[in-house]
Amino acid sequence: MAAGNEQTEKKPQSNGLPPPPFELPYPDKPELITSNLLKLVELTPNERHKFLLKNLVRHMHEFINETSLTTEEWMTAIQFLTNVGQTCTPIRQEFILLSDTLGVSALVDALNNPPINGATESSVLGPFFTEDAPEVEIGESIASEGKGDYMYVEGRVLSIDGKPIPGATIETWETDGNGSYDTQYEVREKPDCRGRLRTGPDGKYGYRAVVPVSYPIPGDGPVGELLTAMGRHNMRPNHLHTMIEAPGYQKLTTALYPEGDQWLASDAVFGVKKSLVVGLKEVKDDAEAKKRGFPKGGAFKLLQHDLVLVPTSESQAARERFAAERAKNALA
Amino acid sequence: MAAGNEQTEKKPQSNGLPPPPFELPYPDKPELITSNLLKLVELTPNERHKFLLKNLVRHMHEFINETSLTTEEWMTAIQFLTNVGQTCTPIRQEFILLSDTLGVSALVDALNNPPINGATESSVLGPFFTEDAPEVEIGESIASEGKGDYMYVEGRVLSIDGKPIPGATIETWETDGNGSYDTQYEVREKPDCRGRLRTGPDGKYGYRAVVPVSYPIPGDGPVGELLTAMGRHNMRPNHLHTMIEAPGYQKLTTALYPEGDQWLASDAVFGVKKSLVVGLKEVKDDAEAKKRGFPKGGAFKLLQHDLVLVPTSESQAARERFAAERAKNALA
Repeated sequence: MAAGNEQTEKKPQSNGLPPPPFELPYPDKPELITSNLLKLVELTPNERHKFLLKNLVRHMHEFINETSLTTEEWMTAIQFLTNVGQTCTPIRQEFILLSDTLGVSALVDALNNPPINGATESSVLGPFFTEDAPEVEIGESIASEGKGDYMYVEGRVLSIDGKPIPGATIETWETDGNGSYDTQYEVREKPDCRGRLRTGPDGKYGYRAVVPVSYPIPGDGPVGELLTAMGRHNMRPNHLHTMIEAPGYQKLTTALYPEGDQWLASDAVFGVKKSLVVGLKEVKDDAEAKKRGFPKGGAFKLLQHDLVLVPTSESQAARERFAAERAKNALA
Repeated sequence: MAAGNEQTEKKPQSNGLPPPPFELPYPDKPELITSNLLKLVELTPNERHKFLLKNLVRHMHEFINETSLTTEEWMTAIQFLTNVGQTCTPIRQEFILLSDTLGVSALVDALNNPPINGATESSVLGPFFTEDAPEVEIGESIASEGKGDYMYVEGRVLSIDGKPIPGATIETWETDGNGSYDTQYEVREKPDCRGRLRTGPDGKYGYRAVVPVSYPIPGDGPVGELLTAMGRHNMRPNHLHTMIEAPGYQKLTTALYPEGDQWLASDAVFGVKKSLVVGLKEVKDDAEAKKRGFPKGGAFKLLQHDLVLVPTSESQAARERFAAERAKNALA
């Protein structure tokens, strides 16, 4: 066949796959577009992928059908998603932010960590965890002096049967008194307001910290625009992140939310559970503050909370029971 | 409140919106995450946005519930969407490609252009339309000599009542004999295999072109990876794009698909409708070829097809009837 130009390397290549080994009607009607695609999804070799794609297609197409999405709305959605993708950088994940603000992250977290009687509930990881938290000994501080109001955090790590778990690793991170994580400053000389410690032989832990402060999630990107268009604030209530690991137990990612914050129930990322809302005791005792190691003494807040872990096997079984209940409406 | 560092400009800002003016329970259970979000969606000032968000949230959350999406799968989805966004450039729209291959573009097109008795059906616009097609007179060529096998395209533009529409604008674009659009070459000195013409006083049109060739959609990005993982080919059957505008009529974006192509029914973007599949007549008549203006004479293919438009008012009414039927299952 004649052609004036040589093909360039930019020309897309066929992936070499043949037409499907079954007849498809021409997709003349909306219903046939969906049913043809669902037949093609049957070609997916991986069974779990096939199941996910089938249900994804069904919901996407139902959404478009039920709303009679217009061509202009479709284009707005394309541009929005493109903008979300292009706002991502190595240190900013706008798609996770979108997932967070649309309750997707919290829902995935809830389904993957079903509640188990007596166990500490999970909460969203968020984007501010780093690998470089310094090791601290029990009683030491995770925050450098002057970063905020004094807070002492203490309790035990227990198994659901009430037995203390010695040697459990606790990672913890929080904002300073400005409502900023250390990673949000232009200059970050060293990790601050974060630490890693181990429980003692009695399962006990304790460390000095600062009272965390509520803060806005990024509002200068497409997700911020979406929240504003929805009439929703972009605030998170103040909280202390905690992640606990111990051999034989399900890793727990959670956070503790001091009571009284005005953003608690409407947390922009749906992270708060009632059992994670904690009271802060005001301790106005100079001697006690100094005994705890607060350099200036004076008053401090005391956060006392036991963290209760679930053996891995029980956690897995609970997840499977939970999943089976919820799969009833799925396309098999 | 004391803090060691000054705030930097990078710190996110509150959007100034207050907590919602109603009570929300803590989202302790998966169901409460969804119902809290749906209550927040009620704050959306624009009614249509509210309706779209409500149904989007419902379907997204149902999908996650029914599939018990795992944390790892969620992260894979986040990374996939980020990759799609970051593959977009000013000349490549990977999200539209994703929409195309998941039948979303075709479905939106079908719903926005419901079939009307006797009218030419629509097809997807695709990413290869450009604004700079040259004007051609009836009988002239849209392709430069040597770009492919000769094809003559002719017919009338009519109203659904059978009346010819004079002065209608026809935009047309197609691949060359390599299966490449002019925009897919490294060097594009001028538009080729595309043109703009007007119907004569009798509604007739006619132009020289080349037989278009089937081609793969881009396979080197995340959408290509998805198709391969699904066991799906990435081919489109050969086709001639056409877009017709005339005052008082609904603009028609469609394409004609020569019969016999092996990719017709499984078109990777679900663009083909039966009524758009056309026969190409083989004309082996040197004199006839020369009369039509083909410089080399010899054989050519003849594509004869009338294009039938719908008055704007009827088109709008049909869309509304169509939408009402489909809205039955939506959250109002």
